[in-house]
Amino acid sequence: MSRISTHCELRYTVAERTSFAFAVLAAQGRRQRVIDERLTLAPEQPVQRVALGPGGHELVRVVVEPGGFGLTYDATVELSAFVAEVPPSVEVPFEEVPAEVLAFLNPSRYCESDRLTRVAERTFGELEPGFGRVTAICNWVYEHLEYVPGSTDGSSTAVDVLVGGAGVCRDYAHLSIALCRGLGIPARYVSGYAVDLEPPDFHGFFEAYLDGDWYLFDATRMAPLDGLVRIGVGRDAADVAFAALVGEATLDTQIVCTIDLDRTAPSDPTTAAISTA
Amino acid sequence: MSRISTHCELRYTVAERTSFAFAVLAAQGRRQRVIDERLTLAPEQPVQRVALGPGGHELVRVVVEPGGFGLTYDATVELSAFVAEVPPSVEVPFEEVPAEVLAFLNPSRYCESDRLTRVAERTFGELEPGFGRVTAICNWVYEHLEYVPGSTDGSSTAVDVLVGGAGVCRDYAHLSIALCRGLGIPARYVSGYAVDLEPPDFHGFFEAYLDGDWYLFDATRMAPLDGLVRIGVGRDAADVAFAALVGEATLDTQIVCTIDLDRTAPSDPTTAAISTA
Amino acid sequence: MSRISTHCELRYTVAERTSFAFAVLAAQGRRQRVIDERLTLAPEQPVQRVALGPGGHELVRVVVEPGGFGLTYDATVELSAFVAEVPPSVEVPFEEVPAEVLAFLNPSRYCESDRLTRVAERTFGELEPGFGRVTAICNWVYEHLEYVPGSTDGSSTAVDVLVGGAGVCRDYAHLSIALCRGLGIPARYVSGYAVDLEPPDFHGFFEAYLDGDWYLFDATRMAPLDGLVRIGVGRDAADVAFAALVGEATLDTQIVCTIDLDRTAPSDPTTAAISTA
Amino acid sequence: MSRISTHCELRYTVAERTSFAFAVLAAQGRRQRVIDERLTLAPEQPVQRVALGPGGHELVRVVVEPGGFGLTYDATVELSAFVAEVPPSVEVPFEEVPAEVLAFLNPSRYCESDRLTRVAERTFGELEPGFGRVTAICNWVYEHLEYVPGSTDGSSTAVDVLVGGAGVCRDYAHLSIALCRGLGIPARYVSGYAVDLEPPDFHGFFEAYLDGDWYLFDATRMAPLDGLVRIGVGRDAADVAFAALVGEATLDTQIVCTIDLDRTAPSDPTTAAISTA
Repeated sequence: MSRISTHCELRYTVAERTSFAFAVLAAQGRRQRVIDERLTLAPEQPVQRVALGPGGHELVRVVVEPGGFGLTYDATVELSAFVAEVPPSVEVPFEEVPAEVLAFLNPSRYCESDRLTRVAERTFGELEPGFGRVTAICNWVYEHLEYVPGSTDGSSTAVDVLVGGAGVCRDYAHLSIALCRGLGIPARYVSGYAVDLEPPDFHGFFEAYLDGDWYLFDATRMAPLDGLVRIGVGRDAADVAFAALVGEATLDTQIVCTIDLDRTAPSDPTTAAISTA
Repeated sequence: MSRISTHCELRYTVAERTSFAFAVLAAQGRRQRVIDERLTLAPEQPVQRVALGPGGHELVRVVVEPGGFGLTYDATVELSAFVAEVPPSVEVPFEEVPAEVLAFLNPSRYCESDRLTRVAERTFGELEPGFGRVTAICNWVYEHLEYVPGSTDGSSTAVDVLVGGAGVCRDYAHLSIALCRGLGIPARYVSGYAVDLEPPDFHGFFEAYLDGDWYLFDATRMAPLDGLVRIGVGRDAADVAFAALVGEATLDTQIVCTIDLDRTAPSDPTTAAISTA
Repeated sequence: MSRISTHCELRYTVAERTSFAFAVLAAQGRRQRVIDERLTLAPEQPVQRVALGPGGHELVRVVVEPGGFGLTYDATVELSAFVAEVPPSVEVPFEEVPAEVLAFLNPSRYCESDRLTRVAERTFGELEPGFGRVTAICNWVYEHLEYVPGSTDGSSTAVDVLVGGAGVCRDYAHLSIALCRGLGIPARYVSGYAVDLEPPDFHGFFEAYLDGDWYLFDATRMAPLDGLVRIGVGRDAADVAFAALVGEATLDTQIVCTIDLDRTAPSDPTTAAISTA
Repeated sequence: MSRISTHCELRYTVAERTSFAFAVLAAQGRRQRVIDERLTLAPEQPVQRVALGPGGHELVRVVVEPGGFGLTYDATVELSAFVAEVPPSVEVPFEEVPAEVLAFLNPSRYCESDRLTRVAERTFGELEPGFGRVTAICNWVYEHLEYVPGSTDGSSTAVDVLVGGAGVCRDYAHLSIALCRGLGIPARYVSGYAVDLEPPDFHGFFEAYLDGDWYLFDATRMAPLDGLVRIGVGRDAADVAFAALVGEATLDTQIVCTIDLDRTAPSDPTTAAISTA
């Protein structure tokens, strides 16, 4: 159990009437409890919080008139992650994958798993199934990629990143997810806050479905796995953009800050078998 | 109101234990009622029908031992499509798009709407919003593409098809969907049966979300819109493959046959504003 | 006949021993005569001018030690373009394309003409062959693209630009070239200086092989065709980069300035049939 | 020194007047001498042999009226390869690459070396320069790819093949070439005949420019390096297609047969440092 404090602040100059959908709220869940939170908009206005359906995260939807606009969100979150003492050595066979998990086997915009099947099979096909195999994928992605801000953009996919050899957190997650799906392991993208991230920012990582549970992985090794606060999950980053907008607005300031209030010894992102889903 | 009879028959040679998920069942819905259906497997075995959650279609999941294997499905379906006398001239603004529809604005594996935003905007941005604009997209896709079986494959996307200038029904749908999403119009892929399709086969078309309802479109003009029987919907064809399998099996025979039992005068696929969702 | 003055100045900070190859010299040719030129390097050093073989341009090759480095080039060029009073209505049939021209029918890194054959054929296949058809391609490219600095980068190809709907001069040329080759018309990229370019910069345009001569085209319409001074030609921009380097150097300043000394009435870039090759 | 006999036979059904350019003639060169050759066309007609300029191969150009058409070519070729006893450990620095070799550093249609720079650098950047490094590239390509006829097509590039993990001889060559160029090593595609190829066919391999000479490499390991008879070289396969045609013709029969007349002990394709250029 650990308590984490998250803070985010986004300030825009809005040039014309703009409709926003923010995905910045910490998710409520079985193993992640939001103890306390405060969301403020400036100028003040009624906040519409909209749940994206079963398993979906909550959006903040707001329409803003031209001028300055800011959103500030603070939360204290209690994580009671499940930690498998013995990491699962079981991948769920296709016929037993639950209906609601099946979509996470499909290729998606940024994770073209259908194109990477053969490479996934040749590189990881001989390994023992389960947690160790997904860890091997993360290690391979970590070795293959260089972390270079600006090397990719919003249209870069797992294939682009594999070819280009560089990326940022979302790219690490996309390539890992695509390789998992290529092996028949359901995998999904998670957006969130991360303790100790340097430089501080939102973070993107992923979960793989093993032995009936969603296990956390982060191929970037930039944060401890028990310091990750979930905002939302999706097929890839397209589903959990921190801010989507229709209209015209410029982001002037973005401040993100995430602190472990209990300063527990962090887990090792390369060996811990943790689930917070 | 019309009654349509659908028939499909799939026969495989299974080389090793194979796990199948078929999406061939006619969907039950408000405006599409399955009056009568029969599903048989050979060799006989218990059938597992699995719903994919709210709004999702039903899968037939089955594990098959090596040898011959066949699935036959017959249904009689009653369509009571809503036909808008005056086609909707309203596109739903971003802030009013319902939470469960938002995902159909996102780019997906085969519909890279994020890459086509500018082309969509330049080509269709000046047109009156609503049904007429989506029809203009369909007409443009119909003119731009040549229907050439074999010109694309399972990894071809809207971008590939735009560049290559040819495709089959799923490609027509993907390109249309990507252009709709590029304009901010939610759009989704529909798989189904289609009366009068030549040669007979499964069919792929799409729906756009206008004025609070899902309207049917088919840029191929190969079938009347009121002769389309829905199997399932998804972000693109990846979500509604007729047969997904893990194992090793060869499809030897595929027979699909769809008949309008009432022989009503077919609707014009380029002007009818029809919703069966 | 017109006289044009070109000026270019490139200043670098060189971090480690760097080997440069510059393609900035005005080409000597039958219809473009360099009357006067001056090339200076700072710090001074012997200049190696290397011709790239028959028909090729001249490179300035130089190895620079760490520190500041500058290249300045001034030339006065006399153009005696051939102007066809009646634009050619002849495209050279494949069997008559001279051996040294054949390579300009092949797809190249930035001009994937093999992927665009069908679109080229469907869009321009019915038009009368010759100058008018290539002009139609230029007009189409001009209409289809938006000129947006920064919208593309050094790896963007004709296909990317067709899909993205925006680009800069090299992208306009690449897409035009790819469409020409897709129709069986040899086409090549030309780098050069352009009178009246706003903002001043190097320029990229193209030539198509018609009726036994290379005719100039510029789909950007940013400069008069008789104000174009040729540096070099190649299959696409990869062959005529203004500066190629191995080592580490930062371009601090780039000044390009091109003046028509005779201030003749400029030709219309959409109708003039001009050859300077 | 070895003598090799090559035979090729191509038979077409020509549906409309068709213009062909064949690249099937064994090249004359310093280290490859054509002792004896016979080219016959059926129906008989005058043969136009056209050289593609300095260093270029010879084409057979012919225009054929509708009906049957066949080309048969037989040659006896004497190879006197240069075999380096000590493989070269020198890569030519950029400033010393001869002008006529520079183009083989540029990215090309099927070898997008600009996109693979980082992967090339990370994977092979630390290795000793020279023959050993290019051999390491070949070994890596051999391990990474599966030889699967039909897995790629005429538009597949080095990037596609890297992602897809499979290909045929031209794909092996393209990926190897792109990786070489990404490291600053000039590399070019060679088409030819290959002793012992199974199944018999034309072959594609490559040469890298090391220590002032072009060395032969073949990442497929399908033929001994001293059993390779050169037809032509180019930037990639686009430049040396065995048959290019404008018109309409169907290839009905293709027979290729290559025999080592001296049955010498074949060289090892993974260690021999051989140049026939």
